[in-house]
Amino acid sequence: MKQIDGGLCAPKGFRAGGVWCGIRKKNDKRDLALIVSDRLCTAAGMYTTNKVKAASVLVTREHLASGRCQAVICNSGNANACTGEAGLDAARRMARAAAAALSIDPALVAVGSTGVIGVPLPVEKVEAAMPDLVSALSADYKGHAAALEAIMTTDTRKKEIALEIELDGKTVRIGAIAKGAGMIHPNMATMLSFITTDAAIAPALLDSALRLAVSRSFNRVTVDGDTSTNDMVVILANGMAENAPIEKDDANYLRFCAALEQVCINLARAIARDGEGATRLVSCTVSGAGDEKTAETLAKAIVGSSLVKAACFGADANWGRILCAMGYSGADFEPETVSVRFRSKAGEVLVCKGGASIPFSEDLAKAVLSEEEIDILVDLEQAGAASATCWGCDLTYDYVKINGDYRS
Amino acid sequence: MKQIDGGLCAPKGFRAGGVWCGIRKKNDKRDLALIVSDRLCTAAGMYTTNKVKAASVLVTREHLASGRCQAVICNSGNANACTGEAGLDAARRMARAAAAALSIDPALVAVGSTGVIGVPLPVEKVEAAMPDLVSALSADYKGHAAALEAIMTTDTRKKEIALEIELDGKTVRIGAIAKGAGMIHPNMATMLSFITTDAAIAPALLDSALRLAVSRSFNRVTVDGDTSTNDMVVILANGMAENAPIEKDDANYLRFCAALEQVCINLARAIARDGEGATRLVSCTVSGAGDEKTAETLAKAIVGSSLVKAACFGADANWGRILCAMGYSGADFEPETVSVRFRSKAGEVLVCKGGASIPFSEDLAKAVLSEEEIDILVDLEQAGAASATCWGCDLTYDYVKINGDYRS
Repeated sequence: MKQIDGGLCAPKGFRAGGVWCGIRKKNDKRDLALIVSDRLCTAAGMYTTNKVKAASVLVTREHLASGRCQAVICNSGNANACTGEAGLDAARRMARAAAAALSIDPALVAVGSTGVIGVPLPVEKVEAAMPDLVSALSADYKGHAAALEAIMTTDTRKKEIALEIELDGKTVRIGAIAKGAGMIHPNMATMLSFITTDAAIAPALLDSALRLAVSRSFNRVTVDGDTSTNDMVVILANGMAENAPIEKDDANYLRFCAALEQVCINLARAIARDGEGATRLVSCTVSGAGDEKTAETLAKAIVGSSLVKAACFGADANWGRILCAMGYSGADFEPETVSVRFRSKAGEVLVCKGGASIPFSEDLAKAVLSEEEIDILVDLEQAGAASATCWGCDLTYDYVKINGDYRS
Repeated sequence: MKQIDGGLCAPKGFRAGGVWCGIRKKNDKRDLALIVSDRLCTAAGMYTTNKVKAASVLVTREHLASGRCQAVICNSGNANACTGEAGLDAARRMARAAAAALSIDPALVAVGSTGVIGVPLPVEKVEAAMPDLVSALSADYKGHAAALEAIMTTDTRKKEIALEIELDGKTVRIGAIAKGAGMIHPNMATMLSFITTDAAIAPALLDSALRLAVSRSFNRVTVDGDTSTNDMVVILANGMAENAPIEKDDANYLRFCAALEQVCINLARAIARDGEGATRLVSCTVSGAGDEKTAETLAKAIVGSSLVKAACFGADANWGRILCAMGYSGADFEPETVSVRFRSKAGEVLVCKGGASIPFSEDLAKAVLSEEEIDILVDLEQAGAASATCWGCDLTYDYVKINGDYRS
């Protein structure tokens, strides 16, 4: 497995592009992205579990039910959520506009939207921009970068990755982008992510590979506990790597799953690192658990706690809040055997053993917690050997600032 | 039902007091409280549902299992949680010290603690302060006020109330104090509250009255989604009002329940209003629901959403976040019929109808949301007539500041 350049366009046969179509008032950033495969793709998607679903989620779920897709169109600046029948019509018009410009069936187009909720989507701006958007498509990094820019909102960092693996002597590539900084909580496919691959893979296996990867990556991230109305992860596989098609749960499938999981984890970490206002990426690994679900529930509660997040911002080794969060997580564990360590490139410090206080150097703890990337390592020291890692960020003044007046 | 002065000491036969014993480093605030009844009381308690329970919670739960109690001792500045066997021993020594000074059985003493988690409790300071604490007891407002001060931590406002009702020609009084500003989330008896009454009431009915009142008050408050390790609500009823003892679910019982519910709601609102760093009290009422539980689940999700809280801080009428929070709450409802209004003393503004945007005055919305007390009124406009109100506060820079370095 090797990291490569090219992003979405690293796999064979994919083009991407982005333009400013005017949904965002200012033209300082693109707001409309298009991703297209030269060939019909096998496709899989995962969507928000929020009961309030954006029109784009409803339309994409309907279109991808066939397991086939060839293009993704996505706007930023407007979530097209809580927009009623008119919103649903706007999402369908986005798919039709892209399909017409690309001469494909509208049912082969996935639609994404992100931005403010409850404002009618000016779909005529999307339609008017289609000729420019199609002209802007390219099969190189430039096209990928323009599409990525066009899906970003409060993101301050790019979330992109491409990997390469060998399957039976053929080179298979996976490229991906994601956006997300706020309204991020691990209970679904969190945020927007679009993934391309030139692997040949059967729809059912692509779907299960995506579910597994998302469960161990995007679904283990939290920024603020709010599950968005617009979350969507879509993967398109066009088969142009010419590997022997993956059609059963064999070694090649597992190799593909491992690569896809790495892609998703890379983006999930990037989302947590770019959490609105965040100054630190906080990774929490819970080990020594009887099963992975228990470890995950505990780790999620820790990175999701406002008090733990605020303590990380203050580089304060307030480990009692970690035990408190574990205690209300709903997971079953014995508090009396828990140990807690903090680790970063500045070092490592054990602050709790047997569920209780032990003497530690406050100076070392401060130094460890002052780094940009912090690990919280919790060992349940119980029967099991299962572990799980979840990702979050600190809670800062800037989170409040960004979200105090988002619509302005 | 009439509001009266006197707090904890308003009911007949109760004395209270507070001193500085040295658990807090600075002597600018009392840190040890004592509440005593002249006569043996019927008592009930509710405790944190956090799996990690403070030693004080374990000891009080054990002592109150008898349904009898005569005194409460409570310290601030140290939570005595995650302190192992030594912590349990310290909590028992607190009960014994109070019992010895008052010449009662240690099993008749409830113990409360609040403050930092995971630091050994210097119980010898409590023991040394007992003579001063007993001398400080008084049956007037002064004693009540000293006890209240002694249980406060990051609280900036006093949470206190006393009410009077008539039961069969006898005057029955209820007095109460509470503390709580952070680590507040509605999943239990949140925070510390001690309630006195001179009502004569059977243990089982006192217990059910407390459970009902707490379920509609403290359990409907959230500040930050973190359920504390030390939460405790204890009520002592000494019977000195000489009302005919409440021994069945009759009109007098319902009158007592209503008064107790008012007492708890008053304190619950005060806790939300004093949420760490808060500038606004946010009350959310969901109506038109099929059942009260659905209404409560939705209202809790709304006041608990970091994004809704940040929008309240910014006086931003971002109602899409309200629908988003409802959507991930887990409650069953149809988004398509929901209406949302904001109300305060500056006026009222409808911002969402039929689950979608309607035109509204941004200026009016800004004015309404700029008040210190805001109501979010959500009508599901569905079959039912059930409603519920939950309370929270805005998310501000100061919440982050207070919790970024709490231990220093």
